[in-house]
Amino acid sequence: MNAEIITIGDEILIGQIVDSNSAWIGNQLNLLNIPVVQITSISDLAEKITETLVQAASRAELVIVTGGLGPTKDDVTKETISAFFGKPLVRNQSVLTHVEGIFARVASGREMPEVNMRQADVIEGCEVLFNDVGTAPGMWIEREGKIFVFMPGVPFEMKYLMTNRILPKLGQLDTHLLIKHRHLITIGLGESFLAAKIEDIENSLPPTIKLAYLPKLGLVRLRLTQYGNSDDKIDVFHEKLIERLDNHVVSTKDVTIEEAIVEHFAEDNIKLATAESCTGGRISSAITAVSGASAMFDCGIVAYQNTIKQQILGVKEETLKKFGAVSEQTVIEMAEGVKKLANADYSIATSGIAGPGGGTPEKPIGTVWVAISGRVETQTRLFQFHNDRLINIERTVANAFAMLWNMYIKERGN
Amino acid sequence: MNAEIITIGDEILIGQIVDSNSAWIGNQLNLLNIPVVQITSISDLAEKITETLVQAASRAELVIVTGGLGPTKDDVTKETISAFFGKPLVRNQSVLTHVEGIFARVASGREMPEVNMRQADVIEGCEVLFNDVGTAPGMWIEREGKIFVFMPGVPFEMKYLMTNRILPKLGQLDTHLLIKHRHLITIGLGESFLAAKIEDIENSLPPTIKLAYLPKLGLVRLRLTQYGNSDDKIDVFHEKLIERLDNHVVSTKDVTIEEAIVEHFAEDNIKLATAESCTGGRISSAITAVSGASAMFDCGIVAYQNTIKQQILGVKEETLKKFGAVSEQTVIEMAEGVKKLANADYSIATSGIAGPGGGTPEKPIGTVWVAISGRVETQTRLFQFHNDRLINIERTVANAFAMLWNMYIKERGN
Repeated sequence: MNAEIITIGDEILIGQIVDSNSAWIGNQLNLLNIPVVQITSISDLAEKITETLVQAASRAELVIVTGGLGPTKDDVTKETISAFFGKPLVRNQSVLTHVEGIFARVASGREMPEVNMRQADVIEGCEVLFNDVGTAPGMWIEREGKIFVFMPGVPFEMKYLMTNRILPKLGQLDTHLLIKHRHLITIGLGESFLAAKIEDIENSLPPTIKLAYLPKLGLVRLRLTQYGNSDDKIDVFHEKLIERLDNHVVSTKDVTIEEAIVEHFAEDNIKLATAESCTGGRISSAITAVSGASAMFDCGIVAYQNTIKQQILGVKEETLKKFGAVSEQTVIEMAEGVKKLANADYSIATSGIAGPGGGTPEKPIGTVWVAISGRVETQTRLFQFHNDRLINIERTVANAFAMLWNMYIKERGN
Repeated sequence: MNAEIITIGDEILIGQIVDSNSAWIGNQLNLLNIPVVQITSISDLAEKITETLVQAASRAELVIVTGGLGPTKDDVTKETISAFFGKPLVRNQSVLTHVEGIFARVASGREMPEVNMRQADVIEGCEVLFNDVGTAPGMWIEREGKIFVFMPGVPFEMKYLMTNRILPKLGQLDTHLLIKHRHLITIGLGESFLAAKIEDIENSLPPTIKLAYLPKLGLVRLRLTQYGNSDDKIDVFHEKLIERLDNHVVSTKDVTIEEAIVEHFAEDNIKLATAESCTGGRISSAITAVSGASAMFDCGIVAYQNTIKQQILGVKEETLKKFGAVSEQTVIEMAEGVKKLANADYSIATSGIAGPGGGTPEKPIGTVWVAISGRVETQTRLFQFHNDRLINIERTVANAFAMLWNMYIKERGN
């Protein structure tokens, strides 16, 4: 069984929102061994929706559609698919009761607008996917051996319907194609050096196993994918890659570097603290987004101004005066200060000029100092990034995690 | 001129990465009045790439393609488009020199692998879009009145090529279709109440103007879009909406709530401080991601453990013992503590059980307290979210910003 995903909404095409739904759905379908062969984003136009449904159904057995189910005039999906399937919309009583119940709770006595009644309209004969966490229900419709699923585009409603309604139903179907993935997250080797280092292993892969490289900000993710119900050679090749790449391997699972850091630090009973200036809390929020972070993280300080750097982190006034806030001396004192304050084993400190303002000829926008303080030493690095504030923050965070990881591996080895 | 975007890479279809490139490109093209009519994500398969290029070119005059230009075996885009255009790949000397230069800098004496030479191969007769920030060049190819642009998928390389090579070229072309957008960010009214409140204005819109609703976590964004070179009624309707929605309007531009907060606080010379437990720095990082945040933000404390709440924020030991870290009393002391510490005018404090661990029968996972302390008072709210850690963090942040905004508007009115 192949799947296609269609996301409907002008806001995606004009870039007002990023379509994160498709990635999540793709990931979930993959776990059920249902490969997604195409993702298509289109506007809220009836003829475009119809054309895209026809094409998707010509290529895939499962078509998953999100968006356009809201109560307002700009949402045309339901009328369009009613015509597409040649079935009228009918009002579903249990959905209507549910919608009225939600209104009674939040509306404090106001009367329910007429448009909301329409949220209870579904395609005649469909299986209604009841939406406990929102007002728009999902719909499951089968026709000529193809399955069509329609869901609202609000991410947590979509996730709720997928998890509780759609994935269980799909899991019960026969899936004939078996896909297996194995992952390897590496650090310290560029994509082409990595490729050269494992060239013989890559060349020996059978045609049923594909190797993909995904480089991003200092890490390269490798993904082995095995198609078909053949023998399980994928684990043999995964092991070969792990052995060959040795201490460049951050993880053998598909995790982020912060997930690897949280897992290893928690296991080894190591505490991390952060003192952030230019990254403004981005490092601590990445760490604490990981489940289990509380086992290895107690304290982060966002010291955006000099007074806070002095007062809380104990950076010396003299240091700030002599070298400035964006300097090697300051990040060292920030890192060592927060490590002491939080009674931690490792710490990260950042200070830089993220932009677009604040640059000088000596310290142009994009100048960033990072310090990592560990059990044995404090290391620093100077980065010279470019003009984009968000990219500068993102690259600082990625480099800080890479520096922390390298020091951790080195000190663990000692 | 219509555009389509094609993103190539298995990692998108299996959900390993979210395709943020398309949204960014869509947004940039919109600013040039070039509407994107479809975004298509496909895998690294030659026949799929060819099929998608043919279809896109049948609908749009501009086809923008990202991904698949890396030096490794899994990237097949260049060979595929060489066949599609019926033109061979030729090695470009200035790109080769550039690639060799990058290697010489980072490779510390190692020899450049053969595969990297191939990065300098381009389609014969194309316009090479020189990539100063990476090794893979972009390509601009015109055929039968259609423009095809190929770029690497690495976001900052793509952005660099768009900004410095492609958008300037597109800006010089005649664009016949004029699209105008006007935005309105509202707070405090659900989508359907909002629709009822402005129903008469919406019904009076001419067919050339569309109104879209985009609800997200407590805010509803309204977008007016005017198509075609007609008269400028869009501003009249924008004004009508602004007047009607009055104090529900957060901004009349397409901004995030944190951008509105930074802008207004900086203008009014108001300082904000944050004391975060369950949000772990997500609030301070959202604020400091906005340019100009340093004018209104000095200090954020991530107090993940009780000792830090006591030691730095001055939360009383007695309070933590009697009520626990996740309690109204604790968030009040956190908010007032950090406000005093940072000498700020407003502060936000959060404490909750984000999950998946840490729940109890009295305080289940998803229990979150938020406090906002202003010039006049400190307000609190208790939230009961669900089981997903990241969604709990995201909803806490969105609600905290909404609470802060409401207090700011109220106190500003006084």
